[in-house]
Amino acid sequence: MLYLIGLGLGDAKDITVRGLEVVRRCSRVYLEAYTSVLAVGKEALEEFYGRKLILADREEVEQEADDILKDADVSEVAFLVVGDPFGATTHSDLILRAAKLGIPYRVIHNASIMNAVGCCGLQLYNFGETVSIVFWTDSWRPESFFDKMEKNRQNGMHTLCLLDIKVKEQSLENLIKGRKIYEPPRYMSVNQAAQQLLEIVQNRRGRGEEPGLGPLAELRVCAGFLHPEPFPV
Amino acid sequence: MLYLIGLGLGDAKDITVRGLEVVRRCSRVYLEAYTSVLAVGKEALEEFYGRKLILADREEVEQEADDILKDADVSEVAFLVVGDPFGATTHSDLILRAAKLGIPYRVIHNASIMNAVGCCGLQLYNFGETVSIVFWTDSWRPESFFDKMEKNRQNGMHTLCLLDIKVKEQSLENLIKGRKIYEPPRYMSVNQAAQQLLEIVQNRRGRGEEPGLGPLAELRVCAGFLHPEPFPV
Repeated sequence: MLYLIGLGLGDAKDITVRGLEVVRRCSRVYLEAYTSVLAVGKEALEEFYGRKLILADREEVEQEADDILKDADVSEVAFLVVGDPFGATTHSDLILRAAKLGIPYRVIHNASIMNAVGCCGLQLYNFGETVSIVFWTDSWRPESFFDKMEKNRQNGMHTLCLLDIKVKEQSLENLIKGRKIYEPPRYMSVNQAAQQLLEIVQNRRGRGEEPGLGPLAELRVCAGFLHPEPFPV
Repeated sequence: MLYLIGLGLGDAKDITVRGLEVVRRCSRVYLEAYTSVLAVGKEALEEFYGRKLILADREEVEQEADDILKDADVSEVAFLVVGDPFGATTHSDLILRAAKLGIPYRVIHNASIMNAVGCCGLQLYNFGETVSIVFWTDSWRPESFFDKMEKNRQNGMHTLCLLDIKVKEQSLENLIKGRKIYEPPRYMSVNQAAQQLLEIVQNRRGRGEEPGLGPLAELRVCAGFLHPEPFPV
């Protein structure tokens, strides 16, 4: 049995009681560590769960999924995901592989930013398409997320903007040369996201366009949610 | 301190470890019982939590919120909500009242159908406005949810349809006469929702319109998610 277990958004105690029971009895427990991060590290989780965790980075999940699924037909394997396992689609691939191999799976849901964002006071029913604001490079400066935000606004919908995370990424040079040297992890700040949005507004104004989001972007991009702060209980 | 605690979607074990710790030490614990239901009843929750729960129906939460908040400035009070506390906006009112009274509050998030619906395989980022399909009566047959579904479809977005729940509702007659006699609880089935959708398609065709959702409604309204089935661990 493969278990995909959501860890929620705060720290070790945000796992569900059901999830914790499963983690404690599985033969192998993987921690997915590239689409999101908790406020605490792997060691704190290991201490609270009472289990060693195997860190699964993007490379492993995408290229060595068979290792993760090994013997999962006869034993129990857990794959832990920050937030909810279906917050991102990255994990559907693992499920599809499991299904193909005849390995049964179960999902243990938890809060993700996709629903916890309701805590900001905006009505959750009225969010439109979710966008990812990606790190720009010198040669790659996509504006598609801005277009989606504009469309949501035209439809009277809010937009949840997810900010880019770069963990264990190779530089273009290292990628081309096949060198497994990784850049330090980067997490986009609200400031950086705001800066990119404002630059898009400026670009469009330079072309004589006035984006509907222009005034909004200037006034409100200062609003951003940090990772929900866990609190001691 | 007022704690709003999400219970998740399955049974007693879907509360988070943090949530359970808080429930066990609060001086009063309320269970909100009118916007959603778990697969298990109040008694099963009480047994697992080791606490007596006070059932809070719509009347109590909306009319006697002060009772719930009583002494919450000097003691700890928990308010349990199926799913996540912000899945519906109903609970914002309680928070606003608490804030007005100077009572601090904390939210302990959990999965709600707003994010767990990702388990159907559809990309969560691409859901548009969420709609509620309400029970029609003889004299009240709104079609606004259908219009929203049409709009989502035109925008290439999926629609999550929430099905109506009627718990502790009075008949119009009893309401007018001020008699506190309540109808038996009703939960809309996928079949009933599909029937209403199909009727709207027929209505519109009768007026010479062809709703974009017409063929979709006929082919696919059979798809519906039941309450996630909890499993023993």
